[in-house]
Amino acid sequence: MSQNTSYALALHGGAGDYANAGFDQHKINAYHQSLYQAAKTGREILSNGGSAVEAIEHCIRVLEDDPLFNAGRGSVFTDEGKVELDAAIMDGNGLHAGAVAGSRTTCHAITLARTVMEKSEHVMLHGRGADAFGETQGLRQVDNSFFQTDFRRAQWEDARRDGKPVTLGKFGTVGAVALDKAGNIAAGTSTGGLTNKQFGRVGDSPIIGAGTYASNSGCAISCTGHGEYFIRTTLARDVSALMEMGGLSLEAASKLMIEDRLHAMGGEGGLVGVDRMGNISLVFNTSGMFRAFTVDASAITTGVFKDDERTH
Amino acid sequence: MSQNTSYALALHGGAGDYANAGFDQHKINAYHQSLYQAAKTGREILSNGGSAVEAIEHCIRVLEDDPLFNAGRGSVFTDEGKVELDAAIMDGNGLHAGAVAGSRTTCHAITLARTVMEKSEHVMLHGRGADAFGETQGLRQVDNSFFQTDFRRAQWEDARRDGKPVTLGKFGTVGAVALDKAGNIAAGTSTGGLTNKQFGRVGDSPIIGAGTYASNSGCAISCTGHGEYFIRTTLARDVSALMEMGGLSLEAASKLMIEDRLHAMGGEGGLVGVDRMGNISLVFNTSGMFRAFTVDASAITTGVFKDDERTH
Repeated sequence: MSQNTSYALALHGGAGDYANAGFDQHKINAYHQSLYQAAKTGREILSNGGSAVEAIEHCIRVLEDDPLFNAGRGSVFTDEGKVELDAAIMDGNGLHAGAVAGSRTTCHAITLARTVMEKSEHVMLHGRGADAFGETQGLRQVDNSFFQTDFRRAQWEDARRDGKPVTLGKFGTVGAVALDKAGNIAAGTSTGGLTNKQFGRVGDSPIIGAGTYASNSGCAISCTGHGEYFIRTTLARDVSALMEMGGLSLEAASKLMIEDRLHAMGGEGGLVGVDRMGNISLVFNTSGMFRAFTVDASAITTGVFKDDERTH
Repeated sequence: MSQNTSYALALHGGAGDYANAGFDQHKINAYHQSLYQAAKTGREILSNGGSAVEAIEHCIRVLEDDPLFNAGRGSVFTDEGKVELDAAIMDGNGLHAGAVAGSRTTCHAITLARTVMEKSEHVMLHGRGADAFGETQGLRQVDNSFFQTDFRRAQWEDARRDGKPVTLGKFGTVGAVALDKAGNIAAGTSTGGLTNKQFGRVGDSPIIGAGTYASNSGCAISCTGHGEYFIRTTLARDVSALMEMGGLSLEAASKLMIEDRLHAMGGEGGLVGVDRMGNISLVFNTSGMFRAFTVDASAITTGVFKDDERTH
């Protein structure tokens, strides 16, 4: 990571108390493999000169398609027993952004967010209006059952039986940040939100400045965790603002927001970030964060817990 | 405005090219009178020791009830011929926040936003889920036709006939900021959005950090204008961040964001702001902004154009 970096990518698949989640080695290996595949998809686009926005979209589509993660297929259920998807993307070059909340039928929420950014006059659409727009733009529509898995249904039924209205989305939101060869950075995030969430709940992921933010003047950030705290602390924007206005490094700004400010409010989660120099940050205050990163043509590193990073 | 200020309030009823809107003197007088009534409602609460949150909610309810403004009754129509309401409120003391997008049946969107802040585990709800939550909390529900006026229907029909998918909401969003005697600041915003907007469009008003933001460490801000630009520039948060991290005054930070950064992107609009010292800012880059302000037990000042402020 230096001024000579020509491209870089970092992604997450959620943060949570994974040390106590009872994962067996087989499942942990599966996560490492999935994270590697997503990072490889993004790296290939960047190495071929593709844009940061393009790399992020396709990297996140891989994670949305993978039922291991709480985004796209395999998303958690709302209190109505449906899947409602939130996503956002932001281009640090020109501060362009697109976001959707409560999408129920568009196959890839991150692609819908990008389409809102590039093809609509709006930045954010919610609910049926978001999917109706996606349909007019030719994006693949599916029945809501497409996103539903037996595993998530069982989790939802457990949550209802326990009378817990909200459980921290332990198995997580996905997101990515990238620096491309043209020197532009971008960020994207996609999620099913919280298990048994009140239907209509909007988390931080689709909120520009909360869960997703990118500015070429600062950095690109994608967050994961208990979203309400990320909205209240405008967390993604604040990391970049601390660089732009406060002169902090990406690493210092990321740590200040996650380890100090989020923690002080009682919020849990993490983030991935990248700046135009190719510096990356992967910071979390939970016992684990599914994550991967790669710089230039180097190896891809994946991790689940604090100290279990693997090089591929 | 000084360290001795014990309470302060500023509100807006939208910003736009009012100089060319063809208002007659009768209508201009009506706006001054309505702005005065709203400010008076807020001032009374503050002078009696009520909280900034309480003052803002009730000040905005007056504006929502008034069909002159694009919030509550008299809101503009979506491309489906319905009214969809967005609102947010934020308490600078503890960074608590509540927001709703796409509410269709709850009588006062700002009250729904406050109820989300105080009674739900979430910060933001959209669509039917937002109204369903309001109903369970006992908030008055109305048919969508309650919000619809003949004037706005005619505007919508004009917009459809002209084939203009979006027109800048010239007759505006409402919002307020306040400092209470306890030294806390808060901000709130409520709107019907843009005439003939794509249904499901979410503007800046309910986005914490975009159209609405408050932190006791910086300032409280409520914005109005072409919301997409306010989301992309995280405008409300950035004014406060420029104070917290950049050392700017409220006035300088407000001007930098509206007159420089928003203007440079081609965005139009304005804001009202207050800090804990009782400094207030009312800044806009359009030819007019409906506005009012009052400090302590002083007179209430209202304004529509650049230089037509009236003291009541």
